[in-house]
Amino acid sequence: MNITLELANEVIAAVQWRAQYEGIAVACAVVDTGGNLVAFGRMDGANLITIDTAIGKAFTAISIGADTVGLSAAIQPGAPLFGTGLTLAGSRSFVPYAGGLLLRSGDEVIGALGVSGAASSEVDHEIGAPSAQLP
Amino acid sequence: MNITLELANEVIAAVQWRAQYEGIAVACAVVDTGGNLVAFGRMDGANLITIDTAIGKAFTAISIGADTVGLSAAIQPGAPLFGTGLTLAGSRSFVPYAGGLLLRSGDEVIGALGVSGAASSEVDHEIGAPSAQLP
Amino acid sequence: MNITLELANEVIAAVQWRAQYEGIAVACAVVDTGGNLVAFGRMDGANLITIDTAIGKAFTAISIGADTVGLSAAIQPGAPLFGTGLTLAGSRSFVPYAGGLLLRSGDEVIGALGVSGAASSEVDHEIGAPSAQLP
Amino acid sequence: MNITLELANEVIAAVQWRAQYEGIAVACAVVDTGGNLVAFGRMDGANLITIDTAIGKAFTAISIGADTVGLSAAIQPGAPLFGTGLTLAGSRSFVPYAGGLLLRSGDEVIGALGVSGAASSEVDHEIGAPSAQLP
Repeated sequence: MNITLELANEVIAAVQWRAQYEGIAVACAVVDTGGNLVAFGRMDGANLITIDTAIGKAFTAISIGADTVGLSAAIQPGAPLFGTGLTLAGSRSFVPYAGGLLLRSGDEVIGALGVSGAASSEVDHEIGAPSAQLP
Repeated sequence: MNITLELANEVIAAVQWRAQYEGIAVACAVVDTGGNLVAFGRMDGANLITIDTAIGKAFTAISIGADTVGLSAAIQPGAPLFGTGLTLAGSRSFVPYAGGLLLRSGDEVIGALGVSGAASSEVDHEIGAPSAQLP
Repeated sequence: MNITLELANEVIAAVQWRAQYEGIAVACAVVDTGGNLVAFGRMDGANLITIDTAIGKAFTAISIGADTVGLSAAIQPGAPLFGTGLTLAGSRSFVPYAGGLLLRSGDEVIGALGVSGAASSEVDHEIGAPSAQLP
Repeated sequence: MNITLELANEVIAAVQWRAQYEGIAVACAVVDTGGNLVAFGRMDGANLITIDTAIGKAFTAISIGADTVGLSAAIQPGAPLFGTGLTLAGSRSFVPYAGGLLLRSGDEVIGALGVSGAASSEVDHEIGAPSAQLP
């Protein structure tokens, strides 16, 4: 099963509601299980870098089959993925920072969410996390 | 508000005047708030690498909503942005070194300036800094 | 001599048989001596990131004239290739991780194999290794 | 003044003669002062990776206005250019390793030479160095 546009828009609305409540302007992206963009929204005031970063975090999560929250540790010198880094390449950007989350309906992965714009990537992850489990 | 070509040319002329006074040949780039190039000038004798680097510094500053002067520290091993590095990609290059500065009219950001060519990125920043605050 | 499609398919089938026996879903790629893709297969359930990674590992092995298994050590800070990292660029991706293996017929290199999808790159290498020496 | 094809071919022939004498197969590239390729030759047996690497070393040298021999040190963690790394992008590749050398006629820079294929980049530099000063 693949995420629908309707559901993707609901996810983004919920994430943006939380961001607004925290006083943060974020960009949110939802990709389907093929890694292709379904919906995207950038709140007024979010920096330009959040565009590729949010889309890339969603793409990265679905590409590795896991949330991106552990990638920062895995790319440090001596760690297994050292040599992997940020690759800005439009909608296929690889972004090894927290804020990319798998979206699940029950146990099934149906897409991924990317959030960018908070003061740290960990906060991006926290703002997105409550929306990762769908009905 | 977005920077005008006239104002961008004045910024570049002022930066180049200071560079010439210091005996340095630099490239200068000004982008608007959308990250798109408005004006560019490379002084005779500045190396080829300064082209993409100056444009990229301006793009990077407007993209992250801040001067680039702190990025070198942020991309070190263990720091939050470790894994981010120089990405030469024409006018959308990401350049994590000092010398990218937000241009402000009053408190409002109206564009960004990138300077490249001095012996160190910190000097690029210093040469650009007096032009960052516009009338 | 260059690897044939028939032989490439046999290599991939053998690697996938071992992966299935170990309960792992991998992508396998075989390139010829010119670094161009001859055959590719991604087992059901292998993550999207394995596509470019497997193809890139095969390309990297034939490009450097050696298995990729030693590259992780060579790109650490202070090591000779520090500054080299993962570059995702379709079928010409540079992937500095284990799992890229030269394919030999007797002593002659006739192509290269890339494997991606196991829990670690070292396991990718182990799954591929028994197929590296061809008749 | 810009290097001529005739002179570029002489440089490459001399470098290849030395490489052959040392029993090494290298690729050699010569670019003009605009960073554009003038001549290139890859000796039989040199790995595929030497193509982009040799061209990129020549491009990098002319781009930074200096031999590339010091770049490895400058890109280490904590050093000024940390965050800069290998960027394979065809004839505009940035290659931060020894083996890129400015070509001078008298004091004037007229192009750059890139050498790749020896066991280490430092040897690439040594093989190229005697050809860097032109009549």
